[in-house]
Amino acid sequence: MMKVAVAQLNYTVGALKSNKFKIIESIYQAREQGAELVVFAEHSISGTNCYYLTNKTQFLEACEVALVEIASHCEGIAVIIGLPILDGNLRVSAAVLIQDRKIVKYIGKKNITAFDELNFFDSSTGCEFITVNGTKLAVVVGEDILTEERFGDNTDIIVCIHSNPYFRRHIEMRYDYLKTLSFLKNKTVVFANHLGGQAEIVYDGSSCIFRKGEGIAFLKSFEEDMQVVDTEAAPGIPVPVQHHTENIYKAMKMGLHDFFVKSDLKKACLGLSGGIDSAVVLAVAVDALGAENIRVLMMPSQFSTEDSLHDAVEMAENLGVAYDVIPITESYNAILDSMKPVIGGTQFDKTEENIQSRIRCTMLMALSNKFGYVLLNTSNKSEALMGYGTLYGDISGAISIMGDLYKTEVYSLARLINRRIRIIPESIMTKEPSAELRHNQKDTDTLPSYDLLDAILYRLVEENQSIYDIVNAGFDDATVTWVAERIKAYEFKRRQFCPILRLSARPCGAGYNLPLINKYILYPHEVLSRTEE
Amino acid sequence: MMKVAVAQLNYTVGALKSNKFKIIESIYQAREQGAELVVFAEHSISGTNCYYLTNKTQFLEACEVALVEIASHCEGIAVIIGLPILDGNLRVSAAVLIQDRKIVKYIGKKNITAFDELNFFDSSTGCEFITVNGTKLAVVVGEDILTEERFGDNTDIIVCIHSNPYFRRHIEMRYDYLKTLSFLKNKTVVFANHLGGQAEIVYDGSSCIFRKGEGIAFLKSFEEDMQVVDTEAAPGIPVPVQHHTENIYKAMKMGLHDFFVKSDLKKACLGLSGGIDSAVVLAVAVDALGAENIRVLMMPSQFSTEDSLHDAVEMAENLGVAYDVIPITESYNAILDSMKPVIGGTQFDKTEENIQSRIRCTMLMALSNKFGYVLLNTSNKSEALMGYGTLYGDISGAISIMGDLYKTEVYSLARLINRRIRIIPESIMTKEPSAELRHNQKDTDTLPSYDLLDAILYRLVEENQSIYDIVNAGFDDATVTWVAERIKAYEFKRRQFCPILRLSARPCGAGYNLPLINKYILYPHEVLSRTEE
Repeated sequence: MMKVAVAQLNYTVGALKSNKFKIIESIYQAREQGAELVVFAEHSISGTNCYYLTNKTQFLEACEVALVEIASHCEGIAVIIGLPILDGNLRVSAAVLIQDRKIVKYIGKKNITAFDELNFFDSSTGCEFITVNGTKLAVVVGEDILTEERFGDNTDIIVCIHSNPYFRRHIEMRYDYLKTLSFLKNKTVVFANHLGGQAEIVYDGSSCIFRKGEGIAFLKSFEEDMQVVDTEAAPGIPVPVQHHTENIYKAMKMGLHDFFVKSDLKKACLGLSGGIDSAVVLAVAVDALGAENIRVLMMPSQFSTEDSLHDAVEMAENLGVAYDVIPITESYNAILDSMKPVIGGTQFDKTEENIQSRIRCTMLMALSNKFGYVLLNTSNKSEALMGYGTLYGDISGAISIMGDLYKTEVYSLARLINRRIRIIPESIMTKEPSAELRHNQKDTDTLPSYDLLDAILYRLVEENQSIYDIVNAGFDDATVTWVAERIKAYEFKRRQFCPILRLSARPCGAGYNLPLINKYILYPHEVLSRTEE
Repeated sequence: MMKVAVAQLNYTVGALKSNKFKIIESIYQAREQGAELVVFAEHSISGTNCYYLTNKTQFLEACEVALVEIASHCEGIAVIIGLPILDGNLRVSAAVLIQDRKIVKYIGKKNITAFDELNFFDSSTGCEFITVNGTKLAVVVGEDILTEERFGDNTDIIVCIHSNPYFRRHIEMRYDYLKTLSFLKNKTVVFANHLGGQAEIVYDGSSCIFRKGEGIAFLKSFEEDMQVVDTEAAPGIPVPVQHHTENIYKAMKMGLHDFFVKSDLKKACLGLSGGIDSAVVLAVAVDALGAENIRVLMMPSQFSTEDSLHDAVEMAENLGVAYDVIPITESYNAILDSMKPVIGGTQFDKTEENIQSRIRCTMLMALSNKFGYVLLNTSNKSEALMGYGTLYGDISGAISIMGDLYKTEVYSLARLINRRIRIIPESIMTKEPSAELRHNQKDTDTLPSYDLLDAILYRLVEENQSIYDIVNAGFDDATVTWVAERIKAYEFKRRQFCPILRLSARPCGAGYNLPLINKYILYPHEVLSRTEE
């Protein structure tokens, strides 16, 4: 019927010139391969998310200037491409149809539902019908694919351009939806997705074409790709099987890599404690940025164990990463000494624990300020939800690549990493988690075991179950309530958390935001049964 | 025609029980004073903003349970009151009409445009018409008052319940709009607004009733109030005159006071440098929380001047606030000494400056952790936009009450404060601004003078002017470009800024969000002409 190309490229927000060149190059390639139509993702020209840039008329004008230049290269080929436009007073995410070097039609997105677009885009009119070389196409932008009801007899092909991010199990869900849609409507569905890391968000790509419920093209996940397909080609390509932990790894790697490259950064640093979290972040960072670009500090205190330091050193050496051992004892004593008029004569408590964590942050930031090694955060979601971390201490960093993963998922990642090469020492995998901020401290002194904690957190946060539901599922009443109250109590720390790469459907700070001041008692007949620290 | 009461109360998010009691008490009072109808603000039962709580069915159910109990007290009086409800699958901000102890009607908000509601409420059907004691009322919630076009002959009174926050010059704008609306529609407009501080947001109240373009009732700004008014009463009460700086002061005071009270906090601390910013924050804090609840630290380094320490001590003594002088030199030297293997032999630069700021943060947080003195941030908006502050250093705190005010506004506030009692020493008012993180440092070593800088920032940020516009208004091309580029470059610091009390229409982090990764060149033919620090 028609030869369609889907171009899945990695764009950068605001890099109008380089985005434009990439697009033009792909148009030439697609034409060379005989494509009649080439489809690019939503926001291709601008990159996404633009946030407040959509309020800058000059920026929107610059996007249109780039569009006009792109159109001038579209001799003998039709193009559908996304960019933000100003439509009267409305800031619209549009798909544009270019035919014979002319800008023929704008199709505006109706459903503005993505968290990052809510304040920055206005709702437009939605689906439009166009004809290219005699083929009838219905074109929708983004989430409009979920709600459009007019895909009828006037349509041969449904085209959706999207900037649909990755999150846990989302690729499977997306394939399922598109496959079902193409089956139910008895049509070909062409889906062109955004690709690449953009600060906290990773777009996995995974663009695809389904025809009447069967796959006819699957573009790569987490990589640039282009495919030219005859929409009458024999269907029956199986839907790519998804490996959950592998996908998370790829998303983290791409997210971190693109964060650095797109910010013109190269070098990273982190604190290596000998625990599982910093070990996994380091392994991913080496893969994404190269061992030669990473520098780690081990910063033992009098509460650190010899074993931990040894494990950290082994880990750094396994990966060939430069490291320094900088004890914090002298700085810790100096601060305690200076603060004597204020805190002298009191009992050791969270104050002294936090001072250690804040000194480490200060030292890592000194390395960062002096030589440009950007600080990577090593927190996980279990800690973030429990407030089990130090504000201006270990919850700091330029980006947290693991802050949306539960502790139990961190172990899965560690096993995946070690399945390839044994990089993470066995003792790091098996030791009991500890912050080592006081003698013989264990995470379980404060928190339930991570197996239990994560099971509760997953139900509370990812599935938005009520305490009542969870208790009915067999969990201990007091524990569930304690966990829920603690999530509420520590919103103030999450509000100042460093940016977190989003790997779930409920990332803290991006939708899962509790009120900072919040007197809602979740389960009135229960009270906190453990001591807060 | 009708005796209407407007009840303007200070609610707390999630405090369903105490909100409910306040409401019931006001209903009895209004009835005693002969009111036929009492109008409460939007979200009265729940408090606002609820954020993710609107996704918790149990919470919405609890709000409705409170509503039912409130209704049981409405013998012989009609009530219009706001709460979040679940309407099918929609989370709706509703006004509810209670008559004769029955819940008669729900009116849902159509325009979900407030930044903090975008992800948490769904659009409903908007304006509804009701009759109370023979009087025809059109009822709208929130921003629907701006767009509703059906206020016609079927309406005697327009009732709007709102949770409309304070920002710079917003009270005047709101009065103007309501006055004009009542004049143009030739009707009575009853406007009941939310009141009080809720984390970063301050609701000023300023509820009012206009009749055919003239005022017949003005409730207090920044205070709880109730008025019972005959809607046929002689109009002609002049619109209250607004004192701009005075309003900002009141907003800061109420914002800070309610932040503490509603979080069950009492005590605050801050670092007092001898500069204007910390002096103003301290003065407001003493007014809001009481001198006896505040403790300050002076933390001089070898770069601090004697004068600054002297001014800080004088300021603390003027206000009767407890203080300690804790030199940071010992801690600073200890960290530099320990870090020698990493940064030894390098030139003094921003690294050493930031270490000082981070030590101060660590010390203040130690005071906070040990004794519960919650840290107040002392940054201003000029600094925040310019990235002129230290991440995990002086941009920290539980709340920034001044982070949405330009430096020049800080001076206006200082003059206002001193007009009452001379609290802020003259030398603090007149000295040249300096961070004192290196010898003889002045803010103007890095930034343009604040008069010039703020003029440019106001145009760029508050008025969203383009560089082109601003240069055309007579500002220096290179300076404007440099400022705009710097705003862009330091988004990463603002992303980790502590919560900022919103006092403008363009608060950083709440709408004025630039992409964290952003290659958009604002003015391509210009480049950074000053050295970054």
